[in-house]
Amino acid sequence: MTLVEMRPIGFVRSSFKEKFATPRQPGLVEEAQGRIVLEPWVQPEESLAGLESFSHIWVIFHFHRNSNKNFRAKVLPPRSDEKVGLFASRSPHRPNPIGLSAVRLEKIEGPVLWVSGLDLIDGTPVLDLKPYLPDADVPARASGGWSGRLPPRRLEVEWSERALGDLAGAADRARLRPLIEKSIAMDPRPKVLKGDKGLAYKTDFSVHIEDWDVKFRYLDDSKILITHLVSRSSENGLL
Amino acid sequence: MTLVEMRPIGFVRSSFKEKFATPRQPGLVEEAQGRIVLEPWVQPEESLAGLESFSHIWVIFHFHRNSNKNFRAKVLPPRSDEKVGLFASRSPHRPNPIGLSAVRLEKIEGPVLWVSGLDLIDGTPVLDLKPYLPDADVPARASGGWSGRLPPRRLEVEWSERALGDLAGAADRARLRPLIEKSIAMDPRPKVLKGDKGLAYKTDFSVHIEDWDVKFRYLDDSKILITHLVSRSSENGLL
Repeated sequence: MTLVEMRPIGFVRSSFKEKFATPRQPGLVEEAQGRIVLEPWVQPEESLAGLESFSHIWVIFHFHRNSNKNFRAKVLPPRSDEKVGLFASRSPHRPNPIGLSAVRLEKIEGPVLWVSGLDLIDGTPVLDLKPYLPDADVPARASGGWSGRLPPRRLEVEWSERALGDLAGAADRARLRPLIEKSIAMDPRPKVLKGDKGLAYKTDFSVHIEDWDVKFRYLDDSKILITHLVSRSSENGLL
Repeated sequence: MTLVEMRPIGFVRSSFKEKFATPRQPGLVEEAQGRIVLEPWVQPEESLAGLESFSHIWVIFHFHRNSNKNFRAKVLPPRSDEKVGLFASRSPHRPNPIGLSAVRLEKIEGPVLWVSGLDLIDGTPVLDLKPYLPDADVPARASGGWSGRLPPRRLEVEWSERALGDLAGAADRARLRPLIEKSIAMDPRPKVLKGDKGLAYKTDFSVHIEDWDVKFRYLDDSKILITHLVSRSSENGLL
């Protein structure tokens, strides 16, 4: 049996500290900034030369948070009511746990790439970076199968007075506010917790974004109230 | 040291039997048809369900023909005069030998995906397939760095009487002719064999495409004459 061995060339530092509420696609949350920090053995000063002239890059990464060793041949995409074959999905649970994201490249400083529109969790191992080449990477007349038929769904998000007070203590609140709002507006709940049955079971959630535990409550199936924020130690913070 | 192990999910069957004259990007040669044949362990009948509704797919593959175990931090792209960092290029010589190509999906039959616009060599191990999602994979306003500034260069290609006679013996000549022409029109020579010095050293080349050895001669640096075709045994043929 042929095996191919891969060694991470670097790691992601991201606002998103857990899978829950991490955007499911790149570009959905522009405020999702982060860094890719390359390892010394790939000689970043030389191997990144010229990449700064590209607006976007491909990040090929390892879905390292998959706990299951096996894959299921059919999966239920987040916005679909029907199972599809795993190769017809971008599910993280794949025979080879390889992920692919196009992200905006903001700047490069030494071994550090600053990116935005990121949909990756903090600590994600990066296997490769490639320049985004519109000539090669945008096929003429590409059409999107089942995903093109699914309407994007954004929930309504409100802040409590207390949550706004907590936010006022954040140095970077102008960016943090839309980052939090947009991330949870995409409804991070698993399908089983949606709808009347889900609401009867659980309405209150918490998610770790940057230095904050964001506490929020579903008022109904399409409306969220952010009740408060709890600051964490800043030692693991992004910025 | 973290290592990630990958096992091929299938293999490419392609018109291109060697690296020489294989298109350097997907989509350049529409007539470059081929197949991806999945292994039974990925349960193709189930895991491919729904993929047929997508026009294009991502093929994530292993650059298995790399003979060198090391990478160079800077590389010379085919159409560039200046070295760039390897992560600013799509060079096959990378720390992790992962390739990425968007190809058109023609049809699926059992474990076999028929694709076109292929830029992969026969026998390439496939690590993953993903649906091409225009929403996620086409960033707004992506711009192409150094590659966007390089004009595509196509050489003039002529057929000798003899070569046209050889072609007349091919069952699939209507597809084979543009496939051969477009593949060699992109000038497969390495940089060292281009220009007056290169021509003084070598003008005659041969390339294995499908069942044929295509023999061609550079008349000058921008003009190719296909002198003749030699049929190979059809046992390794694609179709």
